[in-house]
Amino acid sequence: MNSPDHAPKSQLAEFEADCLRALIDAELGSWLAMAQNAQTKAKDVKNQALIPKWKRVLERMPKPTGSARINQSAVGLETDLSTAQVSHLTAQLEQLKPWRKGPFYVGRGQLILTTDQALKLDRVQQENSEALNPETLLIDTEWRSDLKWDRLAAHLPDLSGACVLDVGGGSGYHAYRIAGLGARFVFNLEPSPLFYYQFMAIRQLLSADPKVNLPHALPMLMSEAPEHSARFDSVFCMGVLYHRADPFGFLQQLKGCLRPGGLLVLETLVIEGDQTQVLVPEGRYAQMNNVYFLPSTQALMSWLTKCGFTDIRLIDESDTSLNEQRQTPWMEFHSLSDFLVSADQTRTIEGHPAPRRAVIFASA
Amino acid sequence: MNSPDHAPKSQLAEFEADCLRALIDAELGSWLAMAQNAQTKAKDVKNQALIPKWKRVLERMPKPTGSARINQSAVGLETDLSTAQVSHLTAQLEQLKPWRKGPFYVGRGQLILTTDQALKLDRVQQENSEALNPETLLIDTEWRSDLKWDRLAAHLPDLSGACVLDVGGGSGYHAYRIAGLGARFVFNLEPSPLFYYQFMAIRQLLSADPKVNLPHALPMLMSEAPEHSARFDSVFCMGVLYHRADPFGFLQQLKGCLRPGGLLVLETLVIEGDQTQVLVPEGRYAQMNNVYFLPSTQALMSWLTKCGFTDIRLIDESDTSLNEQRQTPWMEFHSLSDFLVSADQTRTIEGHPAPRRAVIFASA
Amino acid sequence: MNSPDHAPKSQLAEFEADCLRALIDAELGSWLAMAQNAQTKAKDVKNQALIPKWKRVLERMPKPTGSARINQSAVGLETDLSTAQVSHLTAQLEQLKPWRKGPFYVGRGQLILTTDQALKLDRVQQENSEALNPETLLIDTEWRSDLKWDRLAAHLPDLSGACVLDVGGGSGYHAYRIAGLGARFVFNLEPSPLFYYQFMAIRQLLSADPKVNLPHALPMLMSEAPEHSARFDSVFCMGVLYHRADPFGFLQQLKGCLRPGGLLVLETLVIEGDQTQVLVPEGRYAQMNNVYFLPSTQALMSWLTKCGFTDIRLIDESDTSLNEQRQTPWMEFHSLSDFLVSADQTRTIEGHPAPRRAVIFASA
Amino acid sequence: MNSPDHAPKSQLAEFEADCLRALIDAELGSWLAMAQNAQTKAKDVKNQALIPKWKRVLERMPKPTGSARINQSAVGLETDLSTAQVSHLTAQLEQLKPWRKGPFYVGRGQLILTTDQALKLDRVQQENSEALNPETLLIDTEWRSDLKWDRLAAHLPDLSGACVLDVGGGSGYHAYRIAGLGARFVFNLEPSPLFYYQFMAIRQLLSADPKVNLPHALPMLMSEAPEHSARFDSVFCMGVLYHRADPFGFLQQLKGCLRPGGLLVLETLVIEGDQTQVLVPEGRYAQMNNVYFLPSTQALMSWLTKCGFTDIRLIDESDTSLNEQRQTPWMEFHSLSDFLVSADQTRTIEGHPAPRRAVIFASA
Repeated sequence: MNSPDHAPKSQLAEFEADCLRALIDAELGSWLAMAQNAQTKAKDVKNQALIPKWKRVLERMPKPTGSARINQSAVGLETDLSTAQVSHLTAQLEQLKPWRKGPFYVGRGQLILTTDQALKLDRVQQENSEALNPETLLIDTEWRSDLKWDRLAAHLPDLSGACVLDVGGGSGYHAYRIAGLGARFVFNLEPSPLFYYQFMAIRQLLSADPKVNLPHALPMLMSEAPEHSARFDSVFCMGVLYHRADPFGFLQQLKGCLRPGGLLVLETLVIEGDQTQVLVPEGRYAQMNNVYFLPSTQALMSWLTKCGFTDIRLIDESDTSLNEQRQTPWMEFHSLSDFLVSADQTRTIEGHPAPRRAVIFASA
Repeated sequence: MNSPDHAPKSQLAEFEADCLRALIDAELGSWLAMAQNAQTKAKDVKNQALIPKWKRVLERMPKPTGSARINQSAVGLETDLSTAQVSHLTAQLEQLKPWRKGPFYVGRGQLILTTDQALKLDRVQQENSEALNPETLLIDTEWRSDLKWDRLAAHLPDLSGACVLDVGGGSGYHAYRIAGLGARFVFNLEPSPLFYYQFMAIRQLLSADPKVNLPHALPMLMSEAPEHSARFDSVFCMGVLYHRADPFGFLQQLKGCLRPGGLLVLETLVIEGDQTQVLVPEGRYAQMNNVYFLPSTQALMSWLTKCGFTDIRLIDESDTSLNEQRQTPWMEFHSLSDFLVSADQTRTIEGHPAPRRAVIFASA
Repeated sequence: MNSPDHAPKSQLAEFEADCLRALIDAELGSWLAMAQNAQTKAKDVKNQALIPKWKRVLERMPKPTGSARINQSAVGLETDLSTAQVSHLTAQLEQLKPWRKGPFYVGRGQLILTTDQALKLDRVQQENSEALNPETLLIDTEWRSDLKWDRLAAHLPDLSGACVLDVGGGSGYHAYRIAGLGARFVFNLEPSPLFYYQFMAIRQLLSADPKVNLPHALPMLMSEAPEHSARFDSVFCMGVLYHRADPFGFLQQLKGCLRPGGLLVLETLVIEGDQTQVLVPEGRYAQMNNVYFLPSTQALMSWLTKCGFTDIRLIDESDTSLNEQRQTPWMEFHSLSDFLVSADQTRTIEGHPAPRRAVIFASA
Repeated sequence: MNSPDHAPKSQLAEFEADCLRALIDAELGSWLAMAQNAQTKAKDVKNQALIPKWKRVLERMPKPTGSARINQSAVGLETDLSTAQVSHLTAQLEQLKPWRKGPFYVGRGQLILTTDQALKLDRVQQENSEALNPETLLIDTEWRSDLKWDRLAAHLPDLSGACVLDVGGGSGYHAYRIAGLGARFVFNLEPSPLFYYQFMAIRQLLSADPKVNLPHALPMLMSEAPEHSARFDSVFCMGVLYHRADPFGFLQQLKGCLRPGGLLVLETLVIEGDQTQVLVPEGRYAQMNNVYFLPSTQALMSWLTKCGFTDIRLIDESDTSLNEQRQTPWMEFHSLSDFLVSADQTRTIEGHPAPRRAVIFASA
């Protein structure tokens, strides 16, 4: 007496159901209602109209077999693809441009990018708009997120078996690296539908390898999360805080997701100066709308103290280099070099200090 | 970096998580929020205070191994228990008295109750307060629910692979019988905490047999269910309608849970008479508070038509016999024979017609 | 520093604000949120599109001066109008057809309708489509609501100073008669936007007389009312109960609006028969969709007892006559005579008993 | 048929109903639901227990007749009271200590405080704990709010006929001064129950003069206000912003209450420095918990620009003097002089810059 008209589930629907099951396994039942209702929704009509196209990309992607490589500079799937297959897959994934966070690859060989190799890759791609090896597809994203990861990874505690939240994790590069460290449940909250579908596309490719404990994602804002979720062993929040008009409320929400003693990994834009230096750009910052508080590192650490965090450590503070954030064939819009004054790369074109980022660890 | 202070889950918590997973598998995601928030809550302070005791029964129950027997008159677990073990288990399950729906057993031999055997069992128990066989525990419930099941089972369509809702299923006797027919997902909504924990106790015993696809339950009212759940292949509603002040709203809710063409199995109290005969007892009925509409079978079938059901069939209509509903050692309060006029068993002590029940099938 | 762009309020907006103030004065603050959010909303797109037209009727109506006559068979405004003014006003009010409950008049002379006069009026109008006197406008509604009022009015207690709710009061005929008895606050809940605007049109005319304590209305359903409003001295509910699928819930809501000891005035369709006779028409009744329970008077009185009402009295029970409900120039659709079998006026065309109505009083 | 058991309304209940009516008159119907549900609720159990005591003060206060004087340094009621009456009234109002904002008086003579007189008054009171004139009661509050008023009043536009919101207006000193300028509707949102009852006590005294258009108040937070209330001609927010963890959200809320072109009057703690100077005290500031952002005046003006305000003007910036905020017999706790370093009055005892306040006007 099975209902006869029941269509087989799409891969996307299967992944959404997987995420619900993972929440139950992680004893995060209080998230189920939001998770069930979460829907990709774009900020404007134009992007909303693109969502069906992005979903179709997932349906049309080939399903290679292979081995996932998630703990190396470029996260990817090692597999044998013909030139034609690479060409088809590339055509699909290009429809999800712009790609911000990565890099990712699909193809032959374990791709290890050194900074030099990366530069070489970049040069080749910029000249050629083709990947180095015709049987390997490299999604060379705007950000060399591996460089950011390298600056913090050595300082991380053992995350094996951990339950980790990544707030605003985009296409999921860091979520994969965290999963690669043995975390049990990695959960990427990413409200932008384009980045959510990028994550799902990568997940679909890497699901070829049944040995990998894949991260999960939901297209929702941190502010939609339930209160009293103090369940995560670690919360990552990289590149989000400066977009929040309400930094204290946001830090409190992050704290509210951590179990007592859990670890916050916070990365955001900072300025130089003492504890009372806080820049709030009146207009844009490096061409970004919607930028609010850029505190000094000292101010930010004091804010964390005020919020009740302890054991607050500055892990890294550095200017963002033009090698780390730049235009590529997979992100063809303007990038960092266009946002700085040509003659004085210490200033944005709006006259603010050039981007400088700090990574801070703190305990809940 | 696992949270160190995480206690192992109780069997009850595991069952609750199982139920959430089963809802996801059955594509009933819209129920997750309610399911997650469902909590056993008693009608009054006195019963609320008993809930911790009932939970402890589940924790203290022995965990025998064995084979489940779910498609025979008494649902049970075939297993070897010592007299001491039977005694311990009996002591636990007696704390969940009164048991209304069953019978259930744990012990040696496949227990098949004929009406005659049952009467014999009853006599023995009433004299002895022990089960026939000292190594077999028989929960001899107030209701011989197997007799009700027998009246309808032959008329059921093939339920293998089906998704079935049982509204107000009590300790779950019928849910087990439905599961025994091969249904894929059987879901018992039972708001009374005592009956919910009885269901969970039986589930814990039968979970000894990994081959059984166990039914699930939630302690919630039908009225708490989400709208737009038109997903079930069949909805059973036995012995509930006469407690509803709003029969049309309730029938519409049941219809709203059925896929188009799905089957409603409805059993309720009726009176004799034509289509305009409807009894609404001003006070109690057979000592029950909270009884509203007792229509004639013709009136009830007309109501189902008005609600948009089709293919409405009267499967059975019969007076409730004193063999089917009676006092037992597992339900020591007054039962049917006490609610009828001694000299005229066609009348309740309030002067209403004695209980008469109809089973009706209808298509959504 | 007054906001310069503030338009003067429309008469309708003034009336809505009056209603909010009246709720405050009557200590019904718990209704304010609903009242503020109440919006006229039609059942279908077609009627929704008419709402702006109905609002314009109110804006374009002339504003005569005069004396209100609210305690006589036809409720109206005694005033001097020219033939041209009557013609203009008639044209406006005809846009609010069909008019169901009344009658209402505007013009010279105190209009007292006897049954005979009314018949004469009807004849004249049907021949002429003009009111008797060219300087008097008579809204000769489908219902001679005054006849219904006459059957119950003599039995009413003193309502002077009372706070009275009229559930589903339509164009407000009874609300005016209640106000005419000196009630302090008369409140008509009428969800149909057309009838709500009819009420407001009559209110606008009668507001010419500052001595009258006008009734108030809100376009909302009883089910939208707040709980715990046990504030009214009397609740009238005439001609609504048979449209409710949930009569017990509805009667409980009515009870919930009455102060202890307050009076329910209930009028509904009934059938003949004993306490177990209840007709639920499977399809239409007298061409009305959406008809549920037609109990016998005995059944209805028993239901009121079950709901906790006391001192339940049958005030009147009578067949609806063709003089009381009939087609008129202000309601040109089919009326009662079309809904009965021509050769046997005791049956509706669906074969049900012809309309019979009971008025029952009960104490909360 | 009036409900017989209806108690006469208390003065407080009358004032609450007045407030609801005033919201309707001001076309602020969207506030009614919140207003109706607003309840005084204290932050902690200890204060909650005091609320009945504070309500009793209002019930026991004498009701003098007299003339309100609301546009002079001390707001008050000119009336003839005996020494005994002053003594009784004083005993009542002392139960509402500590009084923060004022001063207020009740008694003979129009009290005009010059700074010198005030100092003299203070000295006399501190020695004597009696008002200067035994027939005049002076509530000599911690704050000489009149001095703050004087710094901004000359810059205000004509407020006659205006609709004005005062966010966190405390005992209402500024609300009275605004009403004294002819504003039509002055509305004080004050969540602290003590300050709300102080406001109500003063309102009760001044209601002796029927010529005064009294301000209204509700015990609620700005964050509880409905969205889309862009109705006020002016919003005052004095001494609140630095308590908000979310200054941008708060400024947007204030903007959302103003009609286009409406005037924001904003007063808050500032520090000296350029546009990137923002102090967020990690712990207390001048012994106050719960202090967040203290921007420089330039930073604050930039924030207002970022929020979309225009025509932003610095009206006043000055250090808070020990004459303006000090201990008095009506506020016996520590005050400003205790919060500064004795030897260096430019520093708070926590080492922060001493209090400095700016008044800024901006247009929505």
